[in-house]
Amino acid sequence: MERKKIAIVGTGLIGGSLAIQLHEKKLSSRLIGVDANLAHAQEALELELVDELLSLEDAIAQSDVIVLAIPVDSLVSLLPRILDQVDQQIVLDLGSTKSQLIEAVKDHPKRGRYVATHPMWGTEYSGPAAAVRGAYENKAVIICNAAESDADALQWVKLMYKKIGMHLLDMEAKAHDLHAAYVSHISHITSFALANTVLQKEKEENAIFELASAGFESTVRLAKSNPAMWVPIFLQNRENVLDVLNEHIAQLTRFRDSIQDGEAEQLRTLIEHANTIKRIIR
Amino acid sequence: MERKKIAIVGTGLIGGSLAIQLHEKKLSSRLIGVDANLAHAQEALELELVDELLSLEDAIAQSDVIVLAIPVDSLVSLLPRILDQVDQQIVLDLGSTKSQLIEAVKDHPKRGRYVATHPMWGTEYSGPAAAVRGAYENKAVIICNAAESDADALQWVKLMYKKIGMHLLDMEAKAHDLHAAYVSHISHITSFALANTVLQKEKEENAIFELASAGFESTVRLAKSNPAMWVPIFLQNRENVLDVLNEHIAQLTRFRDSIQDGEAEQLRTLIEHANTIKRIIR
Repeated sequence: MERKKIAIVGTGLIGGSLAIQLHEKKLSSRLIGVDANLAHAQEALELELVDELLSLEDAIAQSDVIVLAIPVDSLVSLLPRILDQVDQQIVLDLGSTKSQLIEAVKDHPKRGRYVATHPMWGTEYSGPAAAVRGAYENKAVIICNAAESDADALQWVKLMYKKIGMHLLDMEAKAHDLHAAYVSHISHITSFALANTVLQKEKEENAIFELASAGFESTVRLAKSNPAMWVPIFLQNRENVLDVLNEHIAQLTRFRDSIQDGEAEQLRTLIEHANTIKRIIR
Repeated sequence: MERKKIAIVGTGLIGGSLAIQLHEKKLSSRLIGVDANLAHAQEALELELVDELLSLEDAIAQSDVIVLAIPVDSLVSLLPRILDQVDQQIVLDLGSTKSQLIEAVKDHPKRGRYVATHPMWGTEYSGPAAAVRGAYENKAVIICNAAESDADALQWVKLMYKKIGMHLLDMEAKAHDLHAAYVSHISHITSFALANTVLQKEKEENAIFELASAGFESTVRLAKSNPAMWVPIFLQNRENVLDVLNEHIAQLTRFRDSIQDGEAEQLRTLIEHANTIKRIIR
């Protein structure tokens, strides 16, 4: 696989971690960093995530591949403008929602140069310093609406993800956004809400600091996630997120009612049903 | 510290993991297993968590210390009967709720022989095979209503937990149950409810299997927890659990309303507030 000049637009957790792997797997001949946050750009350079920093315009002109790893609201406004400047370059994004973005460029004359992807990896941290080695290995990556991309662009992106060790899945944007709401977005909302629940009470009670156990940490860890990334995700995926959130509130209300009524058998049935999640996670 | 003959009543995850440490820290001269579940008892013996199996009556008669690691509903019915048979033995429990249990023995003539404790450790697995080495090290253990225990019993229990490497905290039962609802019980309910939410949808959608990411796994992991342990905890700590669960539903509803109304600023404020949980967990 011939090495390419690759621009990483957004040099934080997601883009920075991909940059590390593009370099390690010898997929890039040169890595160009682009970041509207100049402190982040400088940090990415110092951490050697990228080889040089350029403006977006220069980066587009000088690259073979443009990787977009920025919040999904910025993606929707920026992708059409990037495609305006693209000739034969390949453009891909790594965003967590897909329908609005794909809709925004569906009639663009350069639509074929763009490949919509969502690697299923992230952490609750953000910024270049949060980038980690081996991040995407053995994880799934979803390619959306593949038929709308040019064959050469699609092929390179698929090979790139395979070289990194990812498991490829094809999906339409609408189905992707529904599933993402269930396997990712709702987990973040419950975690944010759980943190706020505890912080609400902790105003009165200080002991919580000392007692936080492993179980608590695991359910509340995602509450440290960055609002700049998550607010646009929840709003772009509004319909699906509301659907799952309403279901979740209904499920919590069942627990609440069973506990309130002292219904041990009902509570046991709810928990036994929850236990069957073992089929999905190890 | 003189080694003692110690009976472990309940040889599953909690009791089995403690047995491993009592042995490794040379705190026990002999470990006696007691379990109403005969298959579990046999398994604990085969795994060498305990040295021998005895009936509860014989174990009480032949031990210096009796450790109760059984569900909290069994504790409330069994502890008074055990104290009936105790002379100078030390009895302690490792249960997740404390108020009802302490209330159940508060006028017992042998109350002083009993020390109420809650080591803040557990996993989503259960049974003797789930027992792990080093489980309790560097975790907090709460001693409840210490003034109601005899000085010698209290001293031994505290030294035992210190030798294991635990951090001791004193607390009244009422305060304990409140804090436990916030740092442990609610995490389990949200996880059970999240599992049920996803399973509800998964009837229609199979892709969830393939997409489950690390974030999803961490928030839903506790949903594998054992109903025999958790139903009695939720019911015994009913008032506190309802209090926190209602607050949690209210917090989720704020997210729901903000997303529904497309209120980006409000959503950002909610998430930024949740981010301050960094003060509590690393």
